[in-house]
Amino acid sequence: MKTFNVALVGVTGAVGKEMLSILEERNFPVEKLIPLASARSRGKTVVFRDKKIPIQVLGEAHFSGIDIVLMSAGAGVSREYAPQAAEAGCLVIDNSSAFRLEEDIPLVVPEINPQAVYRDRVRNIIANPNCTTIISVLPLKPLHDHAQVTRVIAASYQAVSGAGAQAMRDLENQVCNYVEKKEPITQNSSHPFAFNLIPRIDKVLDNLYTREEMKLVWETRKILGDDSIRVTATCVRVPVFRSHSVAMTVETQHPVSRDTALKLFKGFPGLTVEDDPLNDIYPMPLYASGQDSCFVGRIREDISAPNSIHMWVVGDQLRKGAALNAVQIAELVAAEAQ
Amino acid sequence: MKTFNVALVGVTGAVGKEMLSILEERNFPVEKLIPLASARSRGKTVVFRDKKIPIQVLGEAHFSGIDIVLMSAGAGVSREYAPQAAEAGCLVIDNSSAFRLEEDIPLVVPEINPQAVYRDRVRNIIANPNCTTIISVLPLKPLHDHAQVTRVIAASYQAVSGAGAQAMRDLENQVCNYVEKKEPITQNSSHPFAFNLIPRIDKVLDNLYTREEMKLVWETRKILGDDSIRVTATCVRVPVFRSHSVAMTVETQHPVSRDTALKLFKGFPGLTVEDDPLNDIYPMPLYASGQDSCFVGRIREDISAPNSIHMWVVGDQLRKGAALNAVQIAELVAAEAQ
Repeated sequence: MKTFNVALVGVTGAVGKEMLSILEERNFPVEKLIPLASARSRGKTVVFRDKKIPIQVLGEAHFSGIDIVLMSAGAGVSREYAPQAAEAGCLVIDNSSAFRLEEDIPLVVPEINPQAVYRDRVRNIIANPNCTTIISVLPLKPLHDHAQVTRVIAASYQAVSGAGAQAMRDLENQVCNYVEKKEPITQNSSHPFAFNLIPRIDKVLDNLYTREEMKLVWETRKILGDDSIRVTATCVRVPVFRSHSVAMTVETQHPVSRDTALKLFKGFPGLTVEDDPLNDIYPMPLYASGQDSCFVGRIREDISAPNSIHMWVVGDQLRKGAALNAVQIAELVAAEAQ
Repeated sequence: MKTFNVALVGVTGAVGKEMLSILEERNFPVEKLIPLASARSRGKTVVFRDKKIPIQVLGEAHFSGIDIVLMSAGAGVSREYAPQAAEAGCLVIDNSSAFRLEEDIPLVVPEINPQAVYRDRVRNIIANPNCTTIISVLPLKPLHDHAQVTRVIAASYQAVSGAGAQAMRDLENQVCNYVEKKEPITQNSSHPFAFNLIPRIDKVLDNLYTREEMKLVWETRKILGDDSIRVTATCVRVPVFRSHSVAMTVETQHPVSRDTALKLFKGFPGLTVEDDPLNDIYPMPLYASGQDSCFVGRIREDISAPNSIHMWVVGDQLRKGAALNAVQIAELVAAEAQ
């Protein structure tokens, strides 16, 4: 079996850490692991397969001899280093938004468009989609194949993990301060996360949508390969640690009954149906955290319009929303090379 | 000035307590306050205008001589006691869902349909709408008057106060247990509130909507006096103490620009516009709590459909969502009697 030298850029971040453990968990054929981070992590180590490996500083290390680079250190870092790594012959799987919408860069959810990994690869960079998009697009795919999705209205309930490891510590600290009757400290957001909702994620654009909302619009179309799908979203940060939830209204060309939707979702990889609200069974972020599957429930026909269906989707932002999806892309690449 | 003997049923609950302080705050012309609660509160007192008043036990006390009864002790209690009180000559303002949809019972948001207080009153019971409905319907009213609302798609982010005072203590305890690394205790819900989202509020109905969701459908139509408005909703409990938030998509017969919506909202009583997302100004439940106004922001034209507009509305569930609205109804009744 062919093995691979794998570099992990941003290994100390929330997603980077998760990538490290998922590579080990899924027994990815790693020959040599090269952990990379900023100069702040100089001298630190990570543990992989019970071995301590020193972190190398990005910009000082060479990409030569590396087969696959998993990159999760923000769009700025990706814009600078992904092309360098690709030129050195690495295959880059990039978790940032830097390249996602470029025409000659594949944007891949392995359960949906695995073929894009092979078909569209000219620049040796594959983009990992936005976390909320990955979680939302999974149930959209079988609906789209069956009945042609025409419009999606999404309201997201996004965990603080999406704002990074420091934001998760912020929520933790804010909650501790609350218990100790101290003022909440906000270090990594304009407003406190704890006991609050922040209806702005990422930059505000000219059309007054946030970038996070427009990512859902743009990336959903690209992943499903259909620019005719109209998508709109309101993205909101909620005081949950690491699973995103999305309330979705999906309008289709042809009618989809609840029973058909249930059947479609049950037959789709990466999705688990939890839909027995009478018995309090529905997807919840507290329980989705740490799991690989995305969970779909509260499936019901929309009483306000024909050919419209509601669902509630929940997935671990750090796993399927980011690290797991990236490693799954690496697995496709590895399988291709065997 | 005419003064009134006012009874408060459910005075120890989250809404009852708020009613008590709002009556005092707004200087409602109370002649005598009669606090009523279940036998569990026997021997307890409440403080009103710096005076301790003993709580009377509901079912043992008489309604004769009482002018106005504010009732907030659940639909079962209302069904039993509201007709008794009305028959004894009291005007009942009922916060439960017991009578809201009955044809000869007014369902009133004073900023929207104050005339219903006089026009439809035959049974001496006025119903206070559901909390999420009150908060959602405020911005709908000026949109409806201006451009005829045809369809509303709502996703709610509802505070635990909506589940009562004990649920608020549950969230508090769960958060303390988290900090102390203990298991969360769930006493008043099937699942923990803390760091979680529960996409079910109230009973599940045959169409697989929850009662809470259908309240929004039914009550919005009744308050706006237009059964042609199609409404759909997904209602979700979030770990926030006492303000509800709603992401709304509102489709209208005639186009409404963002500028027009801003103007309409700014001119509408009970609404405050907070809409400068670039500068991190948008409604948030942490700051809306304790306030009388409902806050609207993230106003933008929906890119997925013509004649559709998005907004994000936040209001204190215990104040405008319940106690304040009920006292405002009492104020209309009091003004009528002057």
